[in-house]
Amino acid sequence: MKNPVERLADKLIAGDSQKAALLVSGNNRRYFTQFPSSAGALLITAEEAYLLMDFRYEEAAGYKAKNCQVVGFTSLPEKVGELLGKHGVKQVYMECEELSVAQARSFEKAFQKAGAQAVLDDTLDKAVREQRMIKSPEEVKKIEASQEITDAAFQHILPCIKEGVTERELALEIEFFMRRQGAEDVAFSLIVAAGKNGSQCHAVPSDNQVRQGDFITMDTGALLDGYHSDMTRTVALGKVSDEQRAVYEKVLEAHLAVFDAVKPGVPCCDVDKVARDIIEKDYPGTFGHGLGHGVGFDIHEWPRFSKLDKTPCAEGMVITNEPGIYLPAKFGVRIEDMLLVTADGCRSLTKSPKELIEL
Amino acid sequence: MKNPVERLADKLIAGDSQKAALLVSGNNRRYFTQFPSSAGALLITAEEAYLLMDFRYEEAAGYKAKNCQVVGFTSLPEKVGELLGKHGVKQVYMECEELSVAQARSFEKAFQKAGAQAVLDDTLDKAVREQRMIKSPEEVKKIEASQEITDAAFQHILPCIKEGVTERELALEIEFFMRRQGAEDVAFSLIVAAGKNGSQCHAVPSDNQVRQGDFITMDTGALLDGYHSDMTRTVALGKVSDEQRAVYEKVLEAHLAVFDAVKPGVPCCDVDKVARDIIEKDYPGTFGHGLGHGVGFDIHEWPRFSKLDKTPCAEGMVITNEPGIYLPAKFGVRIEDMLLVTADGCRSLTKSPKELIEL
Repeated sequence: MKNPVERLADKLIAGDSQKAALLVSGNNRRYFTQFPSSAGALLITAEEAYLLMDFRYEEAAGYKAKNCQVVGFTSLPEKVGELLGKHGVKQVYMECEELSVAQARSFEKAFQKAGAQAVLDDTLDKAVREQRMIKSPEEVKKIEASQEITDAAFQHILPCIKEGVTERELALEIEFFMRRQGAEDVAFSLIVAAGKNGSQCHAVPSDNQVRQGDFITMDTGALLDGYHSDMTRTVALGKVSDEQRAVYEKVLEAHLAVFDAVKPGVPCCDVDKVARDIIEKDYPGTFGHGLGHGVGFDIHEWPRFSKLDKTPCAEGMVITNEPGIYLPAKFGVRIEDMLLVTADGCRSLTKSPKELIEL
Repeated sequence: MKNPVERLADKLIAGDSQKAALLVSGNNRRYFTQFPSSAGALLITAEEAYLLMDFRYEEAAGYKAKNCQVVGFTSLPEKVGELLGKHGVKQVYMECEELSVAQARSFEKAFQKAGAQAVLDDTLDKAVREQRMIKSPEEVKKIEASQEITDAAFQHILPCIKEGVTERELALEIEFFMRRQGAEDVAFSLIVAAGKNGSQCHAVPSDNQVRQGDFITMDTGALLDGYHSDMTRTVALGKVSDEQRAVYEKVLEAHLAVFDAVKPGVPCCDVDKVARDIIEKDYPGTFGHGLGHGVGFDIHEWPRFSKLDKTPCAEGMVITNEPGIYLPAKFGVRIEDMLLVTADGCRSLTKSPKELIEL
């Protein structure tokens, strides 16, 4: 597979010297070059890709950035303008969803001097989004490495779940464990919700204490080498009631059915429907969110397993499979893996067990 | 003092029903309403301020958001357009440094239908920046509460500094301590740099181990209730050399001289010069960054103690005072407090000791 810069250039520029693409968002700079930085830009022309870095990053980027040539700058718009002039570029695709109005204005001014024009439509945003949906084997390995930390954190936290421990204490312990294992950060604000709090799908960890018979839903993930992982498990402290067990089994049934449904060509909205139909039949109106979302360089990216996304599944997509049942003022259950779409189906990237655990 | 929404409205709108301001950035939404959220907008008209929140936040914002009325939306641009129509607004000041090109475009379309126009210049960005430079007594209390955690973390970490401990271990221990004390996050990626690494002012904590005789520079801060704190201390493991002591005393001299120099009316660039002249005389070329920066709702905000910022100091500003001397391949020393400009001078918001500590 070609490198990410070449893939984008093939699609947008196709050897036309008069065209270029300018990426300014931190995540996209890092996605294309593997080099994290807090400022700068990546300019892709038909002949060369330049990572423009200020004095703080120039030297380190020279050693570490991939797929590009590193150049320093004092004024970013001026340096970009200079390179456009050198390559005879006339049209520059811009990231309209990321670029601020003020930034766009200063680039436009500099481009004018170089005889080039900013293309302020969704061409570049769309091309990047579509490219990032399909993960290379190397990217899949990085997501798996990130998930390994998340799986290990799940094993680490189980013995800490005891009567009286708070959601916040558990969330911090998971986070600290992930950081000690080398995660650069957590993938998102971790969710730990016990008992009644589990009925809110975006609960914030609180001082609520775990009690015997509670379900504890833990939605956790690590950030490693720029790649996110995302997993939810719901475990119980002590024995559960028949109602709790029935709900758990129903969520698990929906979750497992998804693995059978996914293969290249199946529209994402149809996958959502598979899980939704199973839950709606017995627990109508209790599954109030989409089934899943793409994961990779962003924690939420394209495509979505949702009613609205008709994108066909394609080999290399990594999407979460996270059905849930939420019974207000009672409890909630959610089970989430990341799945990778393969040539003839899909496989889970998550290793943690998903049979009901009663601690 | 009027509340932040009233202060901005007085300045930009001054009772004119045809004018409004629209704030979309997360930090500014929170600054004006004290309510954190990941999406939405704050619309300030002559008659009313509206915090527009989607279904995830609408209920909680209704309980907690200050200085505004909360309204729900499904399409943000349409809802803003509707409110503009209701108030007969013709001109809407926009945050050009924060708003993306794509967002600006969708707002402009919705405004047109309502007979209003987006003002895409720096009027609103400048007004917010100038207002946020001056902290209310309530904001100063919040910054002090954040600094209390940072001061406590310094006391906590001193006994952990031992031969063989790594920079990364110390940085994580400081971070975990702050989080356990209730910090919502750290204020920035904490810096712990030992020995030779201390000569890089933005060193990233590594596996470098602390050795006897090392200086250890720790640049740390907490985020609490939306407000940042920022402090640097350089301590030694064991006895220091005469050269190390001389450098430390010189940095401390420059740092202390700043407190004598700051009072309302003194240009920020003159304050920078006070510290710079003291260091340059004996250690030319070793103080390679500005003396300080505003701190508050952002970790770096206006004004700056730098050669280029002529802003006069004014009562209520909170600015860091962080001179340093960096001797490449040898060591570095930086000492940093946050100072508050008062009616007749300034005072430090930092309680940690700054005499040389030899552990």
